[in-house]
Amino acid sequence: MTVKNAFYAQSGGVTAVINASAAGVIETARQHPDRIGKVFAGHNGIIGALTENLIDTSMEPAENIAALRHTPSGAFGSCRYKLKSLEANRAEYERLIEVFRAHDIGYFFYNGGGDSADTCLKVSQLAETMGYPIQAIHVPKTVDNDLPITDCCPGFGSVAKYVATSIREAGFDVASMAATSTKVFILEVMGRHAGWITAACGLASEGEGQPPHILLFPEVRFDQDAFLARVKECVETYGYCVIGVSEGIKNIDGKFLSETGLTDAFGHAQLGGVAPTVANLVKDQLGYKYHWAVADYLQRSARHLASAVDVEQAYALGQAAVRIALEGKNAVMPAIRRLQDSPYQWDIIEAPLKDVANVEKFMPREFITEDGFHITDECRRYLSPLIQGEDYPPFVNGMPAYVQLNNHKVERKLPEFKI
Amino acid sequence: MTVKNAFYAQSGGVTAVINASAAGVIETARQHPDRIGKVFAGHNGIIGALTENLIDTSMEPAENIAALRHTPSGAFGSCRYKLKSLEANRAEYERLIEVFRAHDIGYFFYNGGGDSADTCLKVSQLAETMGYPIQAIHVPKTVDNDLPITDCCPGFGSVAKYVATSIREAGFDVASMAATSTKVFILEVMGRHAGWITAACGLASEGEGQPPHILLFPEVRFDQDAFLARVKECVETYGYCVIGVSEGIKNIDGKFLSETGLTDAFGHAQLGGVAPTVANLVKDQLGYKYHWAVADYLQRSARHLASAVDVEQAYALGQAAVRIALEGKNAVMPAIRRLQDSPYQWDIIEAPLKDVANVEKFMPREFITEDGFHITDECRRYLSPLIQGEDYPPFVNGMPAYVQLNNHKVERKLPEFKI
Repeated sequence: MTVKNAFYAQSGGVTAVINASAAGVIETARQHPDRIGKVFAGHNGIIGALTENLIDTSMEPAENIAALRHTPSGAFGSCRYKLKSLEANRAEYERLIEVFRAHDIGYFFYNGGGDSADTCLKVSQLAETMGYPIQAIHVPKTVDNDLPITDCCPGFGSVAKYVATSIREAGFDVASMAATSTKVFILEVMGRHAGWITAACGLASEGEGQPPHILLFPEVRFDQDAFLARVKECVETYGYCVIGVSEGIKNIDGKFLSETGLTDAFGHAQLGGVAPTVANLVKDQLGYKYHWAVADYLQRSARHLASAVDVEQAYALGQAAVRIALEGKNAVMPAIRRLQDSPYQWDIIEAPLKDVANVEKFMPREFITEDGFHITDECRRYLSPLIQGEDYPPFVNGMPAYVQLNNHKVERKLPEFKI
Repeated sequence: MTVKNAFYAQSGGVTAVINASAAGVIETARQHPDRIGKVFAGHNGIIGALTENLIDTSMEPAENIAALRHTPSGAFGSCRYKLKSLEANRAEYERLIEVFRAHDIGYFFYNGGGDSADTCLKVSQLAETMGYPIQAIHVPKTVDNDLPITDCCPGFGSVAKYVATSIREAGFDVASMAATSTKVFILEVMGRHAGWITAACGLASEGEGQPPHILLFPEVRFDQDAFLARVKECVETYGYCVIGVSEGIKNIDGKFLSETGLTDAFGHAQLGGVAPTVANLVKDQLGYKYHWAVADYLQRSARHLASAVDVEQAYALGQAAVRIALEGKNAVMPAIRRLQDSPYQWDIIEAPLKDVANVEKFMPREFITEDGFHITDECRRYLSPLIQGEDYPPFVNGMPAYVQLNNHKVERKLPEFKI
């Protein structure tokens, strides 16, 4: 059997469990020394390949690789960088092949979302287009949960658990303060185009009147009058109102609310922060005292509250990617297939990359209630399995003990390449 | 022995562990049926006493009271309401006595911060001022950690653990994205006057270059030039910069930064949100890509990440309050005394309420580094014991199982009273 080295890299916004996928890839590759030599990780994603910034993961002790399973973020550095088409930037592809050849790389594992799947697809075609034999496998990851075919995306389940827990906790807080203080609380969550994370907030509401009372999805145009009427109704009925809002909600004209509201002291538009915009609207129109929170990176890095199902799937998909590569396949992505809702059962299937790249999966309309302000039971049946189980990281001295790898650089063999 | 009923109420901003103190009070009172009859909880703090809105906790099953130990927020409702002086509003004191007499209340337990200690002190003086015999014991609570005498305040340790963990996690996230994306991350935390929570963020940084790199305390006037220079230095040295900022920082003129920055679409001042103000400053002056988060209520309700020490102290102070009352004392607050830093050892002493009410404890200057941007080792030695240990709540179906009490109302015996 030929032994080839492997390249692994992390791409796009990181998650609480992308390193669990890295652990799945590296630990599984280490079990096949007859087929896979070293796993080189790209420093900052595909940029690491282009600039020959490679990390030799074989120098990392087994316990460090194991600790990746409970460490959030991208241990090798991630990037936001999309390869252009072969026609538009042939030099980049030639450079990739130079680097792969110099380091005897025959396997390419790319861990990312929809854009990254596109990059992975382009690499998978290098054998046809440029005559360099390589197998490219995409490992899915994205908190946005917007990849097609797979039941869900690693990273999403943990964000879902975090936002649902956080809005439940904040809801308890507001409930106890509402008589004389805050009556409206607004939590802003991620998901610029797809409302999956906003929907997950809804899991905290398990009975009539339980917060959150209102969800604002990017899929539903923001109707100010209907919204204000609902807030008023909640405060009058329950004494308070808790709202989960996507950073990506748009007004009736299709403009992002976050871009319409605020200007700073210098007169510049204030980017981000739809929560304060909505809060001010409530204050101006209804006069209620409010508080708001913006979870931002906290939600996608909260490994301390990861979903055990999410961690398990992230690791299993990393494992599966190596298995699939060893079966000689190319241009595929291991994906989760749901077999049963409750108790959740799933297995792993293979999705052709051409059906994954650049395809966004939005919330189905039947997951959103008719009034547009909450999730349906069908949505709950979909979401609930994804937040099951707790997988706490170890704590040392009161703080989560996340690993920082040594990240030994591989010696460069090629001249510099500017990207 | 005479049997008297007890009144217990929660006051001010709630915390992740104030209900643990409630459990301490109620469970301990239940062990002394020869001295304490029923514990009546005030619905929404002292307002419950004034309006005769009393909750009969004896109707609540033992397992619900036990579950308060792991449930955040104020289970009986809290309030922001300060009794005026006897001279200014004698009617309120007369009403309190009417209600206490009608329900045979001889013990008054008030669970709150500095303002609430003042209320408790006034009630403790009812025997002298109005001839009604009552023992008033204050149970300390406040995330702001600004009560005097006690080593720390229940509620603070859990916020400290939450913000330190969250900023570490977000720091890992930014570190992996910084090459091609976000370079500066800002987390806004509570503490309008005292920088204890901001200081707690600093616990995440355990070695050179580890985030957070900059802390902005309310005790230190915000020096824009020095701040920007430090941000630039961090980005150039470490590749990124993570900042923890108190909601209460003030500029050189002594104005809250959160009140100087933003106006909304309607031209109104945007309240709150110092993080976006600082972020915009960084963007304008240095051009770095940024993200920001505002933790708001999430930080003080995050029971899922409570400090075990904090929970234990909150419960123990509730227990101690009952013990002290049974010893016949009045106008005192059980307080934590630190015996040793590491391993943390503490016991409970009694603080006279007159020394507690309306006194704020600020961060000592020697807890802040000379440049004003971080915490000293002395500060770490103080803070670190308070975040030790994890005390996870039970989870059911992937979500924390917090108790919602039945809160049986006591039948009213008196005419209505308007506050």
